Amino acid sequence: MNPNKRTSVFHELIKKKSPLIHNITNYVAMNSSANILLACGASPVMAHAIEEVEEMASHADSIVLNLGTLSEKWIKAMILAGKTANKNNIPVILDPVGSGATKFRTETAKKILNEVDISVLRGNISEIFSLSNENIKTRGVDSAINEISDEIIESAKEISIKNQTVVAISGKKDLVTNGKEILLIENGVPLMTKVTGMGCGLSAVIGAFCSVSKKDLIKAAACGFAYYGLCGELAYSVSKNPGTFSMNFIDSLHSIRKEQIDKNSKIKPING
Amino acid sequence: MNPNKRTSVFHELIKKKSPLIHNITNYVAMNSSANILLACGASPVMAHAIEEVEEMASHADSIVLNLGTLSEKWIKAMILAGKTANKNNIPVILDPVGSGATKFRTETAKKILNEVDISVLRGNISEIFSLSNENIKTRGVDSAINEISDEIIESAKEISIKNQTVVAISGKKDLVTNGKEILLIENGVPLMTKVTGMGCGLSAVIGAFCSVSKKDLIKAAACGFAYYGLCGELAYSVSKNPGTFSMNFIDSLHSIRKEQIDKNSKIKPING
Amino acid sequence: MNPNKRTSVFHELIKKKSPLIHNITNYVAMNSSANILLACGASPVMAHAIEEVEEMASHADSIVLNLGTLSEKWIKAMILAGKTANKNNIPVILDPVGSGATKFRTETAKKILNEVDISVLRGNISEIFSLSNENIKTRGVDSAINEISDEIIESAKEISIKNQTVVAISGKKDLVTNGKEILLIENGVPLMTKVTGMGCGLSAVIGAFCSVSKKDLIKAAACGFAYYGLCGELAYSVSKNPGTFSMNFIDSLHSIRKEQIDKNSKIKPING
Repeated sequence: MNPNKRTSVFHELIKKKSPLIHNITNYVAMNSSANILLACGASPVMAHAIEEVEEMASHADSIVLNLGTLSEKWIKAMILAGKTANKNNIPVILDPVGSGATKFRTETAKKILNEVDISVLRGNISEIFSLSNENIKTRGVDSAINEISDEIIESAKEISIKNQTVVAISGKKDLVTNGKEILLIENGVPLMTKVTGMGCGLSAVIGAFCSVSKKDLIKAAACGFAYYGLCGELAYSVSKNPGTFSMNFIDSLHSIRKEQIDKNSKIKPING
Repeated sequence: MNPNKRTSVFHELIKKKSPLIHNITNYVAMNSSANILLACGASPVMAHAIEEVEEMASHADSIVLNLGTLSEKWIKAMILAGKTANKNNIPVILDPVGSGATKFRTETAKKILNEVDISVLRGNISEIFSLSNENIKTRGVDSAINEISDEIIESAKEISIKNQTVVAISGKKDLVTNGKEILLIENGVPLMTKVTGMGCGLSAVIGAFCSVSKKDLIKAAACGFAYYGLCGELAYSVSKNPGTFSMNFIDSLHSIRKEQIDKNSKIKPING
Repeated sequence: MNPNKRTSVFHELIKKKSPLIHNITNYVAMNSSANILLACGASPVMAHAIEEVEEMASHADSIVLNLGTLSEKWIKAMILAGKTANKNNIPVILDPVGSGATKFRTETAKKILNEVDISVLRGNISEIFSLSNENIKTRGVDSAINEISDEIIESAKEISIKNQTVVAISGKKDLVTNGKEILLIENGVPLMTKVTGMGCGLSAVIGAFCSVSKKDLIKAAACGFAYYGLCGELAYSVSKNPGTFSMNFIDSLHSIRKEQIDKNSKIKPING
């Protein structure tokens, strides 16, 4: 099936099944991620206590781990939740917020990648490339971030293969790869970067999309990007400023119609 | 007095007195609960450190304990704040978010119910019934949740009597009981379930209503439900989608007039 | 230069440089502070783990410490971040939320003032005066808070001199002093007090203004007040209720034009 047609198919499935998405996420984005998941049709739950993450994760349809406001206890809870999800064949999304900005974040992201089988690693280019080896890092920094160069594609594929995960990079154009296939997504508007927690909310939405498409995670991630970006475009058509935009964005996640998605979803396979 | 007339009387008192509501609540709903209390006319304060909860609670007009994003230290703070409130004859609201979903939450809710005199226990039906004995639990699960059956009423009364607390159950229709009287409230719209923290905000508002009606907590709880649901109806008349709806809901909490409340508050006593 | 003209100059600099503002703030205001900083043109980061605050602070252009939902571990992180900022000549803003309400908060605020060189101490009058000696405290309480009396001015100057910091007091009129100069700011609307986190957001914005005017912190603080209050006035011209007001406020922070600021900024030097 044309990947663009899948976007609405997956979204209809989310609305129908209302999958439970277990988030261990940062304080800044907890409220907005929960509202984003609800508007999308999913059921969010936030739980981080070591005493309960195993049980909560075992009920979930996918798990989203987000390093935005990290501390030691939460890392343990994330790893325990992630391992539980792995045992139960539940997708695990990792959003390495701020990886590269401090050693603590970079090392934590690497530690989780080592201990948990991550289904989708979602971040911006500097976060994702901070998790690669020196060689790739240099290439990343040398490349223009707004342009998806061949070197970025090669590096993304290497990170994907090394970590056996789908790599999903947000930017002016979004890139998703499983180490072989590469999909570019061209939905979204720059104003989305002026609202806090939008990247975190995207990771949560990708969690919802993966929960209804466990066998084809690269498509799930790409369709999550397309749906999310499209809702940004719809909101921007109503409001050009970040306060009212963010409310209209939530509205769009909830009210967008199948036909709007089918018509405007811009996922393009490229030759890897 | 007709309980429906009390709704506006209590709300006018809140606006006049601006009671201090001390919340120990979850990370997701902290911001929204604070805004909901402010819009309602109350003064919110959030404080959870064991070093200060006793002093803060002693200033408060009511206390709201919410288990949404639980952890060990916060439980201690909740119990200490609750006991302080009990000493000072301040109402304590308990919102057992997610009770029944994990053992940790169910046991924590039971522990707080054992150690603190709870004025109002506010949750949805599965949360409330998770706190009862096996027998009731089974009856609860067997009953259709959207219908208030005789069995649900009997179970709610049992939980109320056993815990010596007003039980306040949210649903399509809301039910409040003190073990003898039963009130049903028929305000509200389904879209309220698509905004995160709405239940938590309701518990906070019931805290505000109880602070101005300490001697008649069942009426206070019922009026809190009616006021809250009515503001949901007003917001829904302006917006059908959850982003803009949530903002209009806050507006309604602030701008609703006495006459609108008196005309539309739907509290109905039923024969227990 | 007329201080009113500086308001737009500083705001243009923020939009141009996008300074990194490192916040260690409370759970209630994290999301709103981040959105406020983004809308203003700055780059917010939230990080509180002891393992990373030093490194994160060393990247920042200013640091904002906020005591809103205090706990022991966070205090250590605040002091470490503050000392790092001092070493690197980065402005540090302290917002002593709730100082005076509990001993724990008052003592923590005093401890941070002792251990860190604070650039701007921003709070309401009861918070700021709780940090002074008994003598001043009494005078503060005796004074009408909505009126800036000579006694308030003298007390503010004493606190400024004693702590070697700019003191910035929010109220009906705002007052800023470095112990010698005094500036009054007459922008803003009362509805701003009906939205949670507005004071916290103001401290964050003052952090952004200080980052582009390290050598003249009193002007930076005054201009931050003027800009913030002006955006409140603009939002109020669109919406009279707190839900939609708060969204329009974010919009105004983002869309306000240089000419609007220059025309309406109301900073007045008074004779100390």
